[in-house]
Amino acid sequence: MELHRGELVPSFETPARVEHILAAFARAGWAVETPGEYDDAVLARVHDADYLAFLRGAYEAWQAEGRDGYMIPGAFPACGMRRDRVPDNLHARLGYYTFDAGSPIVAGTWRAARAAAHCALGAADVVAAGARSAYALCRPPGHHAGRAVFGGYCFLNNAALAAQRLRDAGLARVAVLDVDYHHGNGTQDIFWERDDVLVVSLHGDPNTEYPFYLGYADERGAGAGTGFNLNLPLPRGTDWAGYSHALEQAFARIAVFAPQALVVSLGVDTFQDDPISGFALSTSDFLRLGERIAAAGLPTLLVQEGGYAVAEIGDNVAGVLAAFVA
Amino acid sequence: MELHRGELVPSFETPARVEHILAAFARAGWAVETPGEYDDAVLARVHDADYLAFLRGAYEAWQAEGRDGYMIPGAFPACGMRRDRVPDNLHARLGYYTFDAGSPIVAGTWRAARAAAHCALGAADVVAAGARSAYALCRPPGHHAGRAVFGGYCFLNNAALAAQRLRDAGLARVAVLDVDYHHGNGTQDIFWERDDVLVVSLHGDPNTEYPFYLGYADERGAGAGTGFNLNLPLPRGTDWAGYSHALEQAFARIAVFAPQALVVSLGVDTFQDDPISGFALSTSDFLRLGERIAAAGLPTLLVQEGGYAVAEIGDNVAGVLAAFVA
Repeated sequence: MELHRGELVPSFETPARVEHILAAFARAGWAVETPGEYDDAVLARVHDADYLAFLRGAYEAWQAEGRDGYMIPGAFPACGMRRDRVPDNLHARLGYYTFDAGSPIVAGTWRAARAAAHCALGAADVVAAGARSAYALCRPPGHHAGRAVFGGYCFLNNAALAAQRLRDAGLARVAVLDVDYHHGNGTQDIFWERDDVLVVSLHGDPNTEYPFYLGYADERGAGAGTGFNLNLPLPRGTDWAGYSHALEQAFARIAVFAPQALVVSLGVDTFQDDPISGFALSTSDFLRLGERIAAAGLPTLLVQEGGYAVAEIGDNVAGVLAAFVA
Repeated sequence: MELHRGELVPSFETPARVEHILAAFARAGWAVETPGEYDDAVLARVHDADYLAFLRGAYEAWQAEGRDGYMIPGAFPACGMRRDRVPDNLHARLGYYTFDAGSPIVAGTWRAARAAAHCALGAADVVAAGARSAYALCRPPGHHAGRAVFGGYCFLNNAALAAQRLRDAGLARVAVLDVDYHHGNGTQDIFWERDDVLVVSLHGDPNTEYPFYLGYADERGAGAGTGFNLNLPLPRGTDWAGYSHALEQAFARIAVFAPQALVVSLGVDTFQDDPISGFALSTSDFLRLGERIAAAGLPTLLVQEGGYAVAEIGDNVAGVLAAFVA
């Protein structure tokens, strides 16, 4: 369940999403591999250690208070509140480490988030070893998870972990292109002050679209990272014409950056029938999106993010990937 | 209903609280008056104009989206998020103007909050006219409401409005003493940079107690207000011995400030059987609390805040007031 617009409703981020993607891959005759295990130390390459410790033990602490069900925060360090210290209280820590009352932690959250991170890390290792491309079927998604904050179904930032993994494998510059409908606020947060990872995001205008409080065009990075963050917010109703125009701006910036690899945060909630998003891309547009990404000619790692039109998610994801399989 | 520890439960802040207080007053033979109406401009003396406009129209906007029930926010400008701009989206504005997913706005919220503010303003006018004391039976309470943020059942800051009203009536210095179990974060926020209103709060340590993200001893004010905010956080289990010790510290600071009037944020959730609090004051301790406040010898305005042991709330409030009636 999730808290959505004031009501507890079934979560839009469901296991069926993965099943539909796998079914589309089976129809295409594509093989799927299971990633290996990684030590939790690799997660601390992009996430705060105390945040990781919180996530790891959160639900056990919840149960130790005699609770079960959904771990939903009540209070947050929002406007008018301090965010320079982490209280001891479990409920306060829960609110401290998220910006979202709609993304509950449940019993399996840590195990699932960790496994999703391993998918991204495994795919990064495939690309680091010289593959032209790899795709990581991550669930839960990751791009809303910042250095020390979760939200939007995201707990560990799979794409950021993959980009860092490529950096740690010796690639000097890595670009992240986020094509999910929602701004990748977590990825932006993680690389905000860095000039070795360029972050470019196309997304619904946060003035009207989740996550609301980050993703504006004036956010360009800070310190050494100034100019290495590019947000391209687009209005509701954007179709392929408007989208592909922004996509060219994104690739123009990426070309100047000249990365050794590209990580794509691949949300397909830009689809016209997505239940919680507002763009108008068709299933055939995802073929064009894949072709444009492939045309950049970079070693490319695609990491699954959102996409909530469950029946179509498999075809839309496979459409993007087709350009890399041909 | 409220969102409490991950579940929607009946709100602890109920109409029955007022009925029990009125019943205790009737037993004591005390008269109760209904306040007059005030123009909304007076609310803007301590609250942000855009915040007030939001509160005034929030539920109508919610209904215009075809919704009903509880207006609960999903996302917040918490850690890692911007809080320097207010998005247009209604749900984003809702999250922007609160720090609390547990304090829903409902159809009657604005009307009730405005009426509670009028109670405090009416009582302030009685004190400004020369009365030794007055008590404002406010519901909803107010001390968690900041200049532009609501939470903890509080939408308009009744005590801050009353203190400002006394200032506007010509009193040079007004002290606010907050004896609610929970830190009066809103009152602190409103007067943070001012030296004409001293804010002193005794409360459960925010490291373990709501509102968690404000109320620490190192918060002393800023700018001209530096040194004009005093927080006295106390551990769970504090009884009258520990409480009265902190109360003497509070009055020592107030004596140095030498105010022309005292506004008391009177929560009685310091009571030993309060269902959501952790101090150990008995009903007879509230008599002593009232005596100590009265002993300061200041024109005194007592404003009702929390207190959720409903059966005992009337006797506990009447106990504090007794010293002013004798």
